[in-house]
Amino acid sequence: MALRAALRPKCAFLGLLQSSGSHGRVSTVLVSQMRNNTTAPKIKVDFNQSTGVAVLSMQSPPVNSLSLDFLTELCINLEKLEMDKACRGLIITSTQPKVFSAGLDIMEMYGKSPERCGEFWRAVQEMWLKIYGSNMVTIAAINGSSPAGGCLLGLTCDYRIMADNPRYTIGLNETLLGIVAPFWFKDTMVNTVGHRNTEMALELGLLYSPSEALKIGLVDKLVPQDQLLTTATETMTKWLAIPDHARQITKSMMRKPTIDKLTSNREADIQNFVSFITKDSIQKSLRMYLEMLKKRKA
Amino acid sequence: MALRAALRPKCAFLGLLQSSGSHGRVSTVLVSQMRNNTTAPKIKVDFNQSTGVAVLSMQSPPVNSLSLDFLTELCINLEKLEMDKACRGLIITSTQPKVFSAGLDIMEMYGKSPERCGEFWRAVQEMWLKIYGSNMVTIAAINGSSPAGGCLLGLTCDYRIMADNPRYTIGLNETLLGIVAPFWFKDTMVNTVGHRNTEMALELGLLYSPSEALKIGLVDKLVPQDQLLTTATETMTKWLAIPDHARQITKSMMRKPTIDKLTSNREADIQNFVSFITKDSIQKSLRMYLEMLKKRKA
Amino acid sequence: MALRAALRPKCAFLGLLQSSGSHGRVSTVLVSQMRNNTTAPKIKVDFNQSTGVAVLSMQSPPVNSLSLDFLTELCINLEKLEMDKACRGLIITSTQPKVFSAGLDIMEMYGKSPERCGEFWRAVQEMWLKIYGSNMVTIAAINGSSPAGGCLLGLTCDYRIMADNPRYTIGLNETLLGIVAPFWFKDTMVNTVGHRNTEMALELGLLYSPSEALKIGLVDKLVPQDQLLTTATETMTKWLAIPDHARQITKSMMRKPTIDKLTSNREADIQNFVSFITKDSIQKSLRMYLEMLKKRKA
Repeated sequence: MALRAALRPKCAFLGLLQSSGSHGRVSTVLVSQMRNNTTAPKIKVDFNQSTGVAVLSMQSPPVNSLSLDFLTELCINLEKLEMDKACRGLIITSTQPKVFSAGLDIMEMYGKSPERCGEFWRAVQEMWLKIYGSNMVTIAAINGSSPAGGCLLGLTCDYRIMADNPRYTIGLNETLLGIVAPFWFKDTMVNTVGHRNTEMALELGLLYSPSEALKIGLVDKLVPQDQLLTTATETMTKWLAIPDHARQITKSMMRKPTIDKLTSNREADIQNFVSFITKDSIQKSLRMYLEMLKKRKA
Repeated sequence: MALRAALRPKCAFLGLLQSSGSHGRVSTVLVSQMRNNTTAPKIKVDFNQSTGVAVLSMQSPPVNSLSLDFLTELCINLEKLEMDKACRGLIITSTQPKVFSAGLDIMEMYGKSPERCGEFWRAVQEMWLKIYGSNMVTIAAINGSSPAGGCLLGLTCDYRIMADNPRYTIGLNETLLGIVAPFWFKDTMVNTVGHRNTEMALELGLLYSPSEALKIGLVDKLVPQDQLLTTATETMTKWLAIPDHARQITKSMMRKPTIDKLTSNREADIQNFVSFITKDSIQKSLRMYLEMLKKRKA
Repeated sequence: MALRAALRPKCAFLGLLQSSGSHGRVSTVLVSQMRNNTTAPKIKVDFNQSTGVAVLSMQSPPVNSLSLDFLTELCINLEKLEMDKACRGLIITSTQPKVFSAGLDIMEMYGKSPERCGEFWRAVQEMWLKIYGSNMVTIAAINGSSPAGGCLLGLTCDYRIMADNPRYTIGLNETLLGIVAPFWFKDTMVNTVGHRNTEMALELGLLYSPSEALKIGLVDKLVPQDQLLTTATETMTKWLAIPDHARQITKSMMRKPTIDKLTSNREADIQNFVSFITKDSIQKSLRMYLEMLKKRKA
């Protein structure tokens, strides 16, 4: 099974981009289902009015790949919560076994028109902008592996708690597939683990075990898997004890320069992604990777 | 007693701003005393000509609150020492039991005119500019708790030695009172403990025990309280073994960008503080805090 | 023997700048030898076509001082390797016992014309620009002490492995001699060990033992001396498993802002060095230092 392999550190090459389940003939079905709005929701939100805390669960089988549809649904939910004054805290987690999110959906980057690639990339930016600049307290309850875009999703939160299972890995491992984390992925990681750790991690596409991730500060706390949500909830209570207004201004002061860098370069960043990903050499890399995935499934 | 409570980590909310003793009717008396220049000096300076080292002791009961008068006296003394070619090193400490400095005096921010608030804020900036950019070697001998502005005072020095007493705490805990550390407090902390530690510390208003502070690099060394001044003096000797000119140019290279950021935004920073602190909502927070303090004293 | 003293931590003052062997009458001979191109090469390169890895050994007795001739020869070799598509990795090491490189050659800074000083400084910049921005994977196999410019040379590489011998030291100790590390030395160190470690290290001219250097991240790995090259080669294999193109773009993203800062201020930086180093007071410091060296040799 491809997923299982993807989650092993030594198979890091597989950990970057997961196609969302079975592609090819099936994907056409999926697309038409989405257009008819008949697919199961990829995001589930449980909002507790009494605590002001929402738990957002990613539930897109098999590995919560960040497809355009997934990201669109995620951003709609984030916007609703952000606008709800009663919602002060957000916990992001996954319902999928062994994986938090496997990152960007490779099928959004393979054989697609430049327009579609651009639309996809804008959605990735939007997710980052919405969470990194959120007024809510955001806690990632990372209950499985979290490579590439999955790691980015965790990094955008205010606090990261990870299930202490040595089989799980986390990291921005884009280079392993021959692609490159953009500057704002890099900036987010530098803000979290510093320049030197980021340089090593990005150049080598490092995937860290939970204990390694804790050591460099890529995650803030490890707990047994069955205590993950409880711990996230307790941590949230501490954060919500701080006056919202003062905390929000402080958060903005810390993150605004990084956010401004993307917002003022957003179109150029999209152009850059599109021209890179549609290159013949990159498309060839992605095709080879997909073929390898198919063989493993067979 | 309010102070005792303020020094316990779990009472962090109290650790931010200490009013200088008994306010209300008494404060009028204090102000008139100051105008008559009959109050006891808040700063004591012992300068050793043979070593070139001055020890500056803060001696303003009960908790070395940074009032406008305190800051003015402090800055006058700093300027004298800076201009004295014979003075190469400065040790800053406190004569008050259990406290280094409790930070900005809340009475300077409550019920004051915008002009007065602006004057006060300019004095806080001046203290920071004078110490952070000093040509002298500056060592903080932190012999007690050091919340908020007290922590900032320590952070502006070249080196921080703290008494290893688990009852003491140190940190920029402004958010706990609903106010916000300005960008140059933040920059100073980022330069010392990095971006991520600062983000967590400022958003949560964290107060660290000495051993926690040592771990993240908020202080550089812990020693038993009775060895604090001896250790500071020994450390000073090592720093003074470096040729002054080379050390000063190097220090300026490290700190100039941070200093320039404030000097080129000084008036805007004052305006920002004044408009924030004179808001009804903030004044209400401060009043509630003062009333709580009074009740505790009663 | 001066060298032996220079390598002891407590003799840090000596660890900065090493004159290249015996100066005075002999240096004239050396210069004429160089002009006749009859001197032994200061750099040896072994390129393994099958692995794509070159080992560049510095072999300029006694301590691989970075003279203008040394730097010129080094840069010529670096350029050749950079332009050779077959060369993907570079290991930099020393053939000299107990020393990696003792840093900038003091004789290039003492009693020289401003023009010559400027020429020398441009060569130091060139070395840094060539290695810090190299497309090759660069690994420093630090098999001895590495003060000042020697430490900089190591810091420009992608990865640093040091021989675990407590007699060796490494650090940017310029201030000990009354001179100052320029902003790009500082930037390189900040990128590696962070702002606070750099501030302390540069102001105090700290020389670290291998284990101290590992602790703050100044080097990445320690191994017994006889395993240094083997470990460097194994590490190189891991780095070369990453697709070159993705790794190179990522490296450029991490380092370009720092490189751009020097390239856009290159002439000003040269002027700054020349006017500083030709000052009477600095020349006097250097003369005293050289005289002390001579006495020790006698």
